[in-house]
Order: sequence, then structure tokens, then C-alpha cells
Amino acid sequence: MEKVTPRTLSGFMELLPADQIKMERLLSTLRETYELFGFTPLDTPAIESAEVLLAKGGGETEKQIYRFMKGDSDLALRFDLTVPLAKYVAANYANLAFPFRRYQMGKVWRGERAQRGRFREFYQADIDVIGDGKLGIMNDAEIPSIIYRAFTALGLEDFTIRINNRKALNGYFELLGVSERAGDVMRTIDKLEKIGPDKVVELLTGECGMDAKGAGEIMEFVAFAGSNGEKLGFLESKAAGSEKLAEGVAELRAVAEALPRFGVPERNFRLDFTIARGLDYYTGTVYETSMNSHPEIGSICSGGRYDNLAEFYTDRKLPGVGISIGATRLFYVLSEQGLLNGEVSAAAADAIVISMTGDMNYAAQAATVLRAAGVRTQLYAEERKFKQKLSYAGKLGVPFAVIIGEDEQSGGLVAVKDMRSGTQETMTGAQAAERIGEAVRRAAGEKLIKVNQQRG
Amino acid sequence: MEKVTPRTLSGFMELLPADQIKMERLLSTLRETYELFGFTPLDTPAIESAEVLLAKGGGETEKQIYRFMKGDSDLALRFDLTVPLAKYVAANYANLAFPFRRYQMGKVWRGERAQRGRFREFYQADIDVIGDGKLGIMNDAEIPSIIYRAFTALGLEDFTIRINNRKALNGYFELLGVSERAGDVMRTIDKLEKIGPDKVVELLTGECGMDAKGAGEIMEFVAFAGSNGEKLGFLESKAAGSEKLAEGVAELRAVAEALPRFGVPERNFRLDFTIARGLDYYTGTVYETSMNSHPEIGSICSGGRYDNLAEFYTDRKLPGVGISIGATRLFYVLSEQGLLNGEVSAAAADAIVISMTGDMNYAAQAATVLRAAGVRTQLYAEERKFKQKLSYAGKLGVPFAVIIGEDEQSGGLVAVKDMRSGTQETMTGAQAAERIGEAVRRAAGEKLIKVNQQRG
Repeated sequence: MEKVTPRTLSGFMELLPADQIKMERLLSTLRETYELFGFTPLDTPAIESAEVLLAKGGGETEKQIYRFMKGDSDLALRFDLTVPLAKYVAANYANLAFPFRRYQMGKVWRGERAQRGRFREFYQADIDVIGDGKLGIMNDAEIPSIIYRAFTALGLEDFTIRINNRKALNGYFELLGVSERAGDVMRTIDKLEKIGPDKVVELLTGECGMDAKGAGEIMEFVAFAGSNGEKLGFLESKAAGSEKLAEGVAELRAVAEALPRFGVPERNFRLDFTIARGLDYYTGTVYETSMNSHPEIGSICSGGRYDNLAEFYTDRKLPGVGISIGATRLFYVLSEQGLLNGEVSAAAADAIVISMTGDMNYAAQAATVLRAAGVRTQLYAEERKFKQKLSYAGKLGVPFAVIIGEDEQSGGLVAVKDMRSGTQETMTGAQAAERIGEAVRRAAGEKLIKVNQQRG
Repeated sequence: MEKVTPRTLSGFMELLPADQIKMERLLSTLRETYELFGFTPLDTPAIESAEVLLAKGGGETEKQIYRFMKGDSDLALRFDLTVPLAKYVAANYANLAFPFRRYQMGKVWRGERAQRGRFREFYQADIDVIGDGKLGIMNDAEIPSIIYRAFTALGLEDFTIRINNRKALNGYFELLGVSERAGDVMRTIDKLEKIGPDKVVELLTGECGMDAKGAGEIMEFVAFAGSNGEKLGFLESKAAGSEKLAEGVAELRAVAEALPRFGVPERNFRLDFTIARGLDYYTGTVYETSMNSHPEIGSICSGGRYDNLAEFYTDRKLPGVGISIGATRLFYVLSEQGLLNGEVSAAAADAIVISMTGDMNYAAQAATVLRAAGVRTQLYAEERKFKQKLSYAGKLGVPFAVIIGEDEQSGGLVAVKDMRSGTQETMTGAQAAERIGEAVRRAAGEKLIKVNQQRG
């Protein structure tokens, strides 16, 4: 028979088992974190009507979208989890209680140009809190504590959640009279780290058409290097001239003051007037998160506050605040940077039962005892030499082999071999379950990300 | 602005929060079960090259598939999880250890005619064990114990795993000289429950061209009503005449005898010579699972043994055995039949923190204490009347409200209100976490499926 070459499309992540187990660990840690904060799970279809998905229309996204006809239906694959959320909330408004707090973790698709580290299919892990008409600022303050919990649960310590407020930013631009060129100014400021302050001033006074005084004030603003409290003081000293700035600063202060009450240490967040996150969408608090020792990775968790979730579907005002973690990309960069913890178990089983007697029924019984005690157990059921069976267990990285020879079987016992140390001991099935369970619980304390490699 | 009507495509399941939480429970129970048996998770792309996905070609499936061009690429959405597994094993053969035991839970897409209870996007939850060249029969015996564990973990008790063997079936047909009409005979036998034995005999001697003696033997065979042991004895009494029948019976006996060792009670499995499962694909053991009180639902978990997983991609012989659970359809029928347990928590949070003092920072601190202890906690952050806040908690079904008034706050305490009983008690945050955690652990013992409604 003529064979088809089995291949996976480029830009689509497909992992070998040991890596997949680590990826699952990443996803389950995010899921557990979101659930700890009382978010409800949502699962929307991968396919939507193109009319619904593209209600906002236009832009770069539309070119990337996977869109196709099925019969007479014009369909498309979701390219983010926000548009489906908007659709869902608008369609189910009467059946939801507000604030509506949902998380969604799922794949989205974007037909981007293929290149290393870019994915056409990737997981997003999102949370959003949606208000009906209005939404309290404490929701904005809670979000960084969710980011903090998620990343510390993954094992990350040396990261910074950077927080800004679009009202403060826009208010300040108003004061300087550059509201209409706000976009250009922000994009210029974004280049600060890359091109340095002199070049930024050059661009501000050139392309952006500001005078030297204005450019100087902008530079003073974005480069202001005090503590979070000093930054708030600095902004407040300017706020008399702009209601918008005053409002933004008050929100920033509420967020910054609540954060320690939510358990976020001062070293893990920083007010940063340079971040803006998408000029059209966000209207208040904005967040970015970076690994201090790997700034080149960019933001690993971003989001913010918006005024209107679902304006393309409904007249109701549905403000919200949320964040998104690109889990596929995050896993990819952690893996590439060698930041995944080699001590995290990458085995699908805690124990493998290997019979030397050929009596598979006794082995089946032993496996059943282990499973009943919650030990993830594989029964090795092939006729091979003992050495080959052990070598198989080694390849899978299973930490314990439960071996059954004539002596064990006649005594109603099993031999437990610690695959790492090589030591072996004979005991009852119940004792084996306890011994292995203990070791597994200890190993479960290992976190996905290596802590000691985080600092440069 | 002109609005687009927010709608979800028909045939695509999208649930309200309380139902979604139950659906997640279904999926996580299946996942935990598969992991308990040492299966490794696999996640393949939703999109594959059409050439790869349709390597087998033809048939009903091809018409249903979502297939489309993106640029020059001819793409398609996966319509099951078996073809992607075959591709994966063939492509990664050198990097996998065999037997390769994988589970995969994910959505698949089939553009079927829309009708009630039929889904175009649905979850499959599959396990397969793939051997390299050969695969021991004990793998076939283990599969029903996984089915048993999965359904009992969901709360089901009154179900039957029906087991047959295609070699035994084909061997028996050979004996009767009807090998070439095996398909017609099987389809006729399938109608037994619906049309009764007289009509079946009529069809066997008519359409199927059998003589009265042959038809009589077939009827004796399929209607044989003994215990599992008696059924094996019956088959063995015929087996002298056919090597294939003898081989099939030996396999069936190995499976039936091992099952109790794997912890499957006799009442939950039955040898059933009438089931065949897809005449082309399966070559040995086959499984179906039905709810005894709801036979009209049909099989809720099916599968079997096949000789060649990946023959369209490789010359290697890769035999396997596996099962599939259609989780979306299962959830739908359980829900429709009123079989979901109303006592299972459908709330995303265990506790909701409600402040009456307006000092949200104290409330944030209380929420943080609860979360640190593992209590899924929502902080209510909106300015509303107290009654509205409590009514919100009620709508969400949150079992405990943690209320903070002036007295509690000045004493460094919280009041815990049991939303079901209405009782309220003042205590420290740590005590609240313990109290709520205990109640939540108790409630977690509730199973997804109502036990007392299972019997007619």
C-alpha cells in the first residue's frame, strides 16, 4: 500500500510524552489558580459564525483568521477567547449573575507567518470579571494577586508585575497637549529600553512634534525612578490640572495600596508609566508581567480594564478587567531557556508492575491494590526478558518498579524497587502503596520552573 | 452602532456556568481515571493536513469533515482522536517506548446533519495501548477495569460492560459457512432486540441465504443465556472445528478470568456474542457499555482490539486496544434523563467574602487567608446593598458567605454564614478556612450521577 508521510503542520505544537506531561502541569497549575479565586469555567466552541466572530471587523487579525465555508455557512475558528466571551455574555445576559467571573483555557488559531517560536495554534488561559454597568476598582487590585499566585505556584520568584493606568496616562498627555499624538508618543516611549533616552527625545521633538519642554516632561515622567509611593506622589502633584489624571491616579493608588493585603510582596509589582497595552481597547488599569532575569522574553501575562466588552452585540455597558496568559508560548520559552525543572516527574505512572512468574492474574491483583490506594500504576503485560521490562520502565522514567517473583507471589508479597537508587525491598501490596504514595507526594512539591536558574 | 446578534452555531454545546461545572467534573473524573492506570496525556493539533487526516480516505466521514484551504494548504479539522494517534505514533516511532499507552481528551468535529442530541463539535475521551509488532492479551483484560473505574467514579453502579471477540465470531461464522455474508448476518443479529427472534430467523434464511439449521445454530449462539463460564464452555464445545474460533475463545477466557483480579465484579460485565463494533476495524476483543436502566441510550463506552493502527503511514505492524467515551453526548443524555446529581456543587467558589464596612482591604486580607488555605474564594467588590450581595451569593450557589461587619473587623474576626442552613457564627479567618474546607471535602464525596435514580 502507498503510504502517506505522517507529519504535523508547522506552527502547531505537538510534544513528546515527557514534555506533554510538563505542559499539562503548566495548564493545571493555571486552572487551579483561577479556580482558587472563584472563577467559573467556560467552554465556548472552536468554530463560530464568521459574522459573529468578526463583528468588530478589520485589522491584522482578520487576515490571520482561519475562515471557511461549510455548506452555506460562513465559519471561522476563534482567534482569541475575548470575542467568544463577549458573545456569550451578550447572549446569556439574563441567565448570568454579575459580576460574572469566568476563566477559559483553550486553543485559539491564527494563521501567522510561520517562524521559530510562533504558533498558529496555541493555548490561551484567560480570566475576566465582567460588571453590569459598572465594576469596582478592587477587581483591578485583585488581578495582580492572581498573577502572583499563578507564577509562584509554577516556581517563579523573580518576576515583576508592572502596572499602569490608561486614564492617568491619557490625562497626563492632555496636560502636555499631546492627546492627539498619544499613539505616536506611546510607541516612541516603548522604544526607550532599546534606543536610549537621547534618541527618544529626538523622536519626540521630531516625528511627534513636541517642543523640548514637553519632551523633557515626558522623559521625566516615564523615567521617574522612585518607589511606588513616590511615583504616586509625583503623579498626584500634577493631577490638579486634569480630572482624568486625578481619577487615574486615584485608581492606581487604590490598586497599589490593596496589593499587599492580597498577599503580593512589594518586590513583585511596580508602577510603570511606560506600559500602555493596545491603545484602543484598554481604558483603565493595565498590566504586564516580566521575568527579571529574562526581559527578552517580553510580557508573560498581560491585560487590563476595558469599558465595554460586548459593544458589537449589545447596547448594555459591560465593563471588565482581565488578563491572558499565552500558555503555549510560555511553555516554549521556558523550555528553550532551559528553565523547566528536571526534578519534576515526567512519568505518566508512579509504579509499574512487572511479573517474573508469568502469572499475570497475581500481577493484575497487585496493580489493582496500588490503584485503589491512588497510586498511578501501569501493569506491564508483555512477554519479554526481565531486563527488557526494567529497561522499558527506565525509559518511561517510572520511579518505582513493583516486581513479582516466585518468592513474592508464594508469600503474597511484592518487591518494590526504587528505580533511582536501585534499592529493593519486599513488602505487602498495601505497604507498597503507602511507600510509593509517600514518595510521590514528596516529589509533587517540586515546581515546574527551576528556581535556582532564574537569576541571570 | 449596528449590532450583530450574538449566537452560537447549532450542534455546538455551550453551557451555562452551573452545567459547565458539572461537565468539567465529568471530564476531570475521566482524566483522573486514565491517569490512575498510567496512561500518558497526548495533545495533538485540531488542524491537520487533509492528506494526512484522510489517508484512509472515502466513506461517510469524508463528507462530514470540516475541510478548507488556508493559502495553498489543504487543511481539515480532526474528526476523531484515532487518526491523529496513528499519525503521532508513526511519526515519533523512534522516540516512543512500546507498549505506548496514551490518553487523549479533546474536541473533534463532524459536520453532521443537525438534530437534537447530535453534536458537530464534541469531546472524545480515548485511551489506547499500542504494541510494537505484538501486544499481550492482558491489555484487553485491563480495559474493562478502566471502564468500570471510570463509571463507578462518576457514580454509576447499574451498568454492564459487554465483551465479545471478533476472532471467535468470525471463527463461528466460518464453521457455519457464512463467512462471506458475515456482515449481513451481524446486522441482522443486531436487530434481535428490536424485531424479535422470529423475524431474525426469517431474515437469516431469506436475505442472508442461510438454511434453517444454520439459522437455528446462529440463534442458539446469540441467545445462549448462561453465565459467563457457561458461555465460554458452549463456545469451547464448538471450537474443535475452527482454529480461529479456538483462538478467539482462548482470548475471551483470558479476559473473563482476569477481570475479577482487576476488581471488576461479575455483575458488571457479560460475554455477549451479539456485539461486533464496526466490521472492518476491530480484529479481537470488542467492548460495549450500557446503562441497565437506560438501554435506549445505547453504548456509553465502546472499543476493542485492532491489528494495525497506522497502516496508512507505516509498514510497521502496530496492534492496539482502546476505548472511546463520547463525553459531550454522555453529558447531554445524563442531563436530559435527569440523572445528574443535584447535590454536586455547581458553584465556582466555596466562599464569598462580603464586606459591610466598606473597608475592602480588610476583606481582601480575609479572602487571602482563605485562599492560602485552599478555599476557593470570591471577593465581592461591588457597592451594593447587603441584601443584594447575599442574593448574588445565592444565585451563584456559593455554600458559605464570609461576612465582615464593624464588630468582626474591630475584633479581627469574620462571620461565616452557611447559606443553606442560614446559621451564622463568628470566628477567626483561619477557623473559617478550616470550617469551610471541611464542608467542601464532605461535599466532594457526592458523585456526578444520581445513584438512586438509576434503577428504572
